[in-house]
Amino acid sequence: MNILLTLAFNGTNYHGFQVQQNAVTVCAVIQDALQAVLGARPNVKGCSRTDAGVHARRFALSVRCSTTIPMEKLPLALNNQLPPDVRVLAARQVPDSFHARYSATGKEYEYVMLNSPVDDPFAPGLYYRVPQPINEAAMHRAGQVLAGRHDFAAFMAAGSSVKDTVRTITALSVRREKARVVLAVAADGFLYNMVRIITGTLLEVGLGRMDEKQPARILQSGQRSQAGPTLPGKGLFLNRVFYPEEATNL
Amino acid sequence: MNILLTLAFNGTNYHGFQVQQNAVTVCAVIQDALQAVLGARPNVKGCSRTDAGVHARRFALSVRCSTTIPMEKLPLALNNQLPPDVRVLAARQVPDSFHARYSATGKEYEYVMLNSPVDDPFAPGLYYRVPQPINEAAMHRAGQVLAGRHDFAAFMAAGSSVKDTVRTITALSVRREKARVVLAVAADGFLYNMVRIITGTLLEVGLGRMDEKQPARILQSGQRSQAGPTLPGKGLFLNRVFYPEEATNL
Repeated sequence: MNILLTLAFNGTNYHGFQVQQNAVTVCAVIQDALQAVLGARPNVKGCSRTDAGVHARRFALSVRCSTTIPMEKLPLALNNQLPPDVRVLAARQVPDSFHARYSATGKEYEYVMLNSPVDDPFAPGLYYRVPQPINEAAMHRAGQVLAGRHDFAAFMAAGSSVKDTVRTITALSVRREKARVVLAVAADGFLYNMVRIITGTLLEVGLGRMDEKQPARILQSGQRSQAGPTLPGKGLFLNRVFYPEEATNL
Repeated sequence: MNILLTLAFNGTNYHGFQVQQNAVTVCAVIQDALQAVLGARPNVKGCSRTDAGVHARRFALSVRCSTTIPMEKLPLALNNQLPPDVRVLAARQVPDSFHARYSATGKEYEYVMLNSPVDDPFAPGLYYRVPQPINEAAMHRAGQVLAGRHDFAAFMAAGSSVKDTVRTITALSVRREKARVVLAVAADGFLYNMVRIITGTLLEVGLGRMDEKQPARILQSGQRSQAGPTLPGKGLFLNRVFYPEEATNL
């Protein structure tokens, strides 16, 4: 059978999702928990390869295995085996054709900046702290040119091997929640480091160091060197993954 | 001189604020930082003796010392010496007569319940988790009888030595913020464990295990045994402390 697990995890102590030699990954601790509960170590497919330190509020994972444990009891059984920074939110059986990565039609990320001179003692390892005042309305306005179907080559990590750099951003917004400034972006797919470079570029606008019209020119240039810095992984949250209804419906 | 420091701290790893033998307290790590920055270990007075595991969003501390460091530079200097779960938010010089505890005219606490079958991987050690659905509107209604000037003996830890158990609650509300149910209460003073017992009692109402009219009878009884359980310290946040303007104005 094929099971879709939905996870939330704090990526602070992990080298991303994907299994690597000599590094603790979210995938490895999930496989350990599945082995303890199911008695065998199943193959798992994650919806994306998150980088070191990146977090997820709803990460999707497909697991091929056989079990008689009812789906509604699986989250608790797995959570009893998992470290507190990785939690299983839900489990459901899905069609054999479902694949957490290839069945996805889009994803939503948030990049969270803590706009404060002082770190938050309740959120160690979370958020990217920016001490100078951020103009989030300017960031929001400047970011609207990125919505739609474009070649995002300028917002991809240099040296990436991907050929087709065209993606469609379906929504991009920047809002303030007390001391936090949150950039939310949904797209049919993301290039490597795309959210972190987009946020790094719009933050230049938010700090008054870049003109609001500059992101349009950067997009057109197709040159990574024109865009702003890649912000650290600790501010990035995978918020959710989109699937067509028929992909998950048995 | 007399300095008022405002702190935020995550109490998860501390045995409360007050210095104790053989236990790590917030007071001790603050004194260590002050000693490193000022060159001498000053006497400090906290606004309250918080229990083990209790958190603070704005905790007030008065410090008698002499220093030539400008007040606006003191937070950064201290934060460089402090562990990440204790942060200095502000520092200002106050009259010699100011005392963080005795000058206070009131305090505001929040008790935060995570109403979810699953722990929050982004808030380890924070919040008291309640898996069953909470009716926060019923808690709010039932709590209104506690507002005002009353003898709160029924909501004080058994065995407390305080003689005068009359206090005035100036505001009490229960609200939901997504998966969190938050009880906020302000008063001119609090008895030992008062917020944790009030919340434990109103939670009985919120879970349908106690009638909405019962808290009024418990208040009148003056009997600790009539009230609900003392909830754990990890859900309790000191939100702020109130001082008369003239107490802090030089």
